[in-house]
This record gives sequence, C-alpha cells and structure tokens, in this order.
Amino acid sequence: MSKNEQPIGFIDSGVGGLTVLKEALKQLPNENVIYLGDNARCPYGPRPKEQILAFTWQLTKFLLEKNIKMLVIACNTATAVALDEIKEKLPIPVVGVILPGARAAVKATKTNKIGIIGTQGTIQSASYETALRLKVPEIQPFSLACPRFVPIVESNQVRSSVAKKIVAETLLPMQRAKVDTLILGCTHYPLLRPLIQSVMGEKVTLIDSGVETIGEVSMLLDYFDIAHLPVNHQPIREFYTTGSVDAFNQIARTWLEKPEINAKHIKIKGA
Amino acid sequence: MSKNEQPIGFIDSGVGGLTVLKEALKQLPNENVIYLGDNARCPYGPRPKEQILAFTWQLTKFLLEKNIKMLVIACNTATAVALDEIKEKLPIPVVGVILPGARAAVKATKTNKIGIIGTQGTIQSASYETALRLKVPEIQPFSLACPRFVPIVESNQVRSSVAKKIVAETLLPMQRAKVDTLILGCTHYPLLRPLIQSVMGEKVTLIDSGVETIGEVSMLLDYFDIAHLPVNHQPIREFYTTGSVDAFNQIARTWLEKPEINAKHIKIKGA
Repeated sequence: MSKNEQPIGFIDSGVGGLTVLKEALKQLPNENVIYLGDNARCPYGPRPKEQILAFTWQLTKFLLEKNIKMLVIACNTATAVALDEIKEKLPIPVVGVILPGARAAVKATKTNKIGIIGTQGTIQSASYETALRLKVPEIQPFSLACPRFVPIVESNQVRSSVAKKIVAETLLPMQRAKVDTLILGCTHYPLLRPLIQSVMGEKVTLIDSGVETIGEVSMLLDYFDIAHLPVNHQPIREFYTTGSVDAFNQIARTWLEKPEINAKHIKIKGA
Repeated sequence: MSKNEQPIGFIDSGVGGLTVLKEALKQLPNENVIYLGDNARCPYGPRPKEQILAFTWQLTKFLLEKNIKMLVIACNTATAVALDEIKEKLPIPVVGVILPGARAAVKATKTNKIGIIGTQGTIQSASYETALRLKVPEIQPFSLACPRFVPIVESNQVRSSVAKKIVAETLLPMQRAKVDTLILGCTHYPLLRPLIQSVMGEKVTLIDSGVETIGEVSMLLDYFDIAHLPVNHQPIREFYTTGSVDAFNQIARTWLEKPEINAKHIKIKGA
C-alpha cells in the first residue's frame, strides 16, 4: 500500500468526532478512513489532564497499528490536552480541532466578541482563548462550559424536549454576552446545532470546528503530497468503538446517512 | 531573532506577487515580510522551463540569505516549474499558488466547468488541469493563455482603454466556454479583476489564488508553530526589485495603499 492509499485516522471520546468525519467524507471522498470512538470512557471533559493524555495515547497507538498516514484528533478535550505532545512524537502529520476553529472565528467576527462553548476540560484549558488572543489581541472571548451537552448526544436524545430545555438553560449566559460568533468547541455539539442556533438567534455565526479542520486536513494532504488519487472502487470506511456497538451504529448510521455502517467493538490495550 | 520573528519571503517575476502580499498584510498583519520582484527579467511566462527554474532558484537564494522562515512562490509560472524541486530541497516550508487556487475552484464550482487563465508557461504546464482532475475527475477544465495581460500590469496601464480592449478580445473564447468558475492563474491578473469580471459577467466566480494561498500560509504558520506573535512596533516590510525602483514603487504604493514603500534595487547573483 503506497503512502497515498493509507487511511486517515480519526479519534474521539465517543461519537462527537463523527461530525468531523462527516465533513471528511464530503470534502475528501477518495480517502480511506478509520474512526475510533472511546465510548466506554466518554465523556473525557470532566477527567483530569493526565488521564485524558493517557487515553488519547492509547487511541493513537491503536490507529498507528492500522497504518494511518495522518491522525485527526477529532475531540476538543483531547486536542487541548494531548495535541502538542502527540504531534511532536509522531512521524505522521497530526491535526487537532482547536486552531482551525479559532482561525475561522477570527475571520468571521465583526465585533471581536467571540463565544466559546465546550467541555469543562476544554474551557479550563483556555486553549481557544489563548489561540484567539495570539491572533488578534483585541478579541474579547467569552467561554462557557456545557457539561450536560455530551451526554445528550451520546444517549441519542438530540431531538428530545429535554435536550431543548437543557440547551436553552445552559446557553443563557452566552445569550447575554452578545457575541456575534460562537465556536462549537466540542465535536459533539454540531449534532445539537439546530437547537443552539435557535437559542442564540440567526444572526450569530456558529463555527463548526469539524468543517474547518477538514479544510486543514485537505491542505496538509496536498502539502505533504499524500492525498489519495480518485478511485473506482469503494474506499475503506472502518469504525471501532470501545463501547456498545449497537448504540454507536445507531448514531453513526443516522448522522452519516450510511445504514451500512457496522462498527467493531475493541478492547483498548491498557484500558 | 527567534524563528517566529523571522520574515516570510515572497518572490515573483515582477509586481504580480504583490496581490498575494496584499492579502498577507491583511490576514497576517503581525508577520514580517520581504518581497522580491524580478522585474528586469519579467515576464517569465514565455521563457523555457530550464530558465524559469534557474531564475526562481536565484530569487530563492537571495531571500534565504535574508533568513526567511517560509517561502511563498507568489508566481504561477514559477510555481508550475519550480515548486516541487525547491520545496524538496529547502529546510523551510515552501508554498506555491496553484494548489490553493485549484482547491478553492473545486469548492466553488457547481457545474464542474472551470476556466483557467494564465501565462503561456503556466497553461502549457497543465498544472491546474492536473490538480483539478486529481481532485475531481469529472471536472471539465478550459485553459487559455493570456500573454498580453502581464505587460499591461507591469507597465501600469490597467485602467487604460487599451487594457479594456485587450482583456475583452483575449477572453472571447473563455466567454464561449460557459464556465461558472474562473481561476486567475497568474498573480498579476487580480490587478485586472474589474475588467475580467465585467467581460465574464457577474455570475462567474473569480478565484484569486493569492487570497487562497495566504489561507494556506496562515494554516502552515500554525501547523509548524512559527506564527509571529502580536507586536506593538511596526513589522518589517522590505521590497526589492531587479528592475526600475521608480516603476516598482509606483505600482506597489498604489496597489498596497502604502505611500511609504521604498523598494531597493538589487542585482541578482549570476543574473
């Protein structure tokens, strides 16, 4: 298998990274992809840094054995904690979701008031705030942890009335902050996008880090000359989860509109 | 000087690369930049490949002595001929203007009919056609060499009635090709943008490779962690030309809206 034909690996704490993968399937249809969701240990957000780092390394090592040519850390919490270390140590390109989101937000804002929602881990790391201020010191970031969002997505309740209530309640302080741009700083959140947009109002630009991240992946595939050439046969789409295969399949099939998805259960080494 | 503070180098056959630099000053205001235009030997388009390669290496070596951290080949002809070799041999990131333009065109088109205008050198290289077809095999590219455009720009006649006539005549075959997206495949052409848009009609999306290229530069600065931090003092803006300083200043001051520009004349080693 030539470098170009090797798959791109995606890791996430659960199903959130599927929002990034969805964009990859759209923008980069020729690429082979492998996805690993650590659903058994989701959410990562409230966990201590050392544990998130160790878990992320375990997921990374599983995909390295699958001979990936590039790694996408499709999870904001893992990106905030582990990207720098993993990128430094891996011989392949490694992409996180935070910088692409920050770049897009800076481009989109007109008032310099940018909101960030994410897990406790991501918000506590202040990764977005740091990235935004390094680009434009005048940016006034307003950050809000939304720990109740990931469980709604992982339990496939995004269309429930409970979800609507939780989103509305949680985002109250963000509404009052009068931001013109809101970074969905957790890859699970695009699954709640209609609810978030309706609470924030149509005038607020929502930044989906996943979409932006795949733009970066596309550029890097070109830059390192490892993009897959067009093929006639069906490219590889492999899914792994450390949790329930049925629950994973249910969300993945709906979200990706691919009823043929059949994830494999795996036990992570050292987990 | 730390890596982050080193300048980004821009090279072009003349003043065309200023359209790329203009976008850099807008998107990346913190960065130090050095520009070198080879106006004495412009245009590159009709020259043989070996000569373009040799000239591009000479410009590159001049900027390497200025301690640049990244090189932007802000010239389509030089990118088509020299990017691969220079990128492979340089220890710093090297960016050309063709792939960013091709990526943006693929994203923009709805009919898969993409036009490309450029110098004879760029069009003969078929670099855009190859890049487009590798991304989406269904793309129907229509290429047109416009050898009369660069001299109009270099002689600062973009607002003349002669320019209007030449652009209208030259683009006739492109009008008939019914493209929905047109790649300005020469960094000089954005200076003719209003004329080109008016001939092609408002519905045709013009792709300015320069704008797209700076998006890639921005991403790579982050990826390699070499972006310049915000500063209070005025960043470096240095301009060099192998040709007439007065002619260069006249175009550069108007185009970049910077009356303080004062280019230095240089004699290229080996030229």
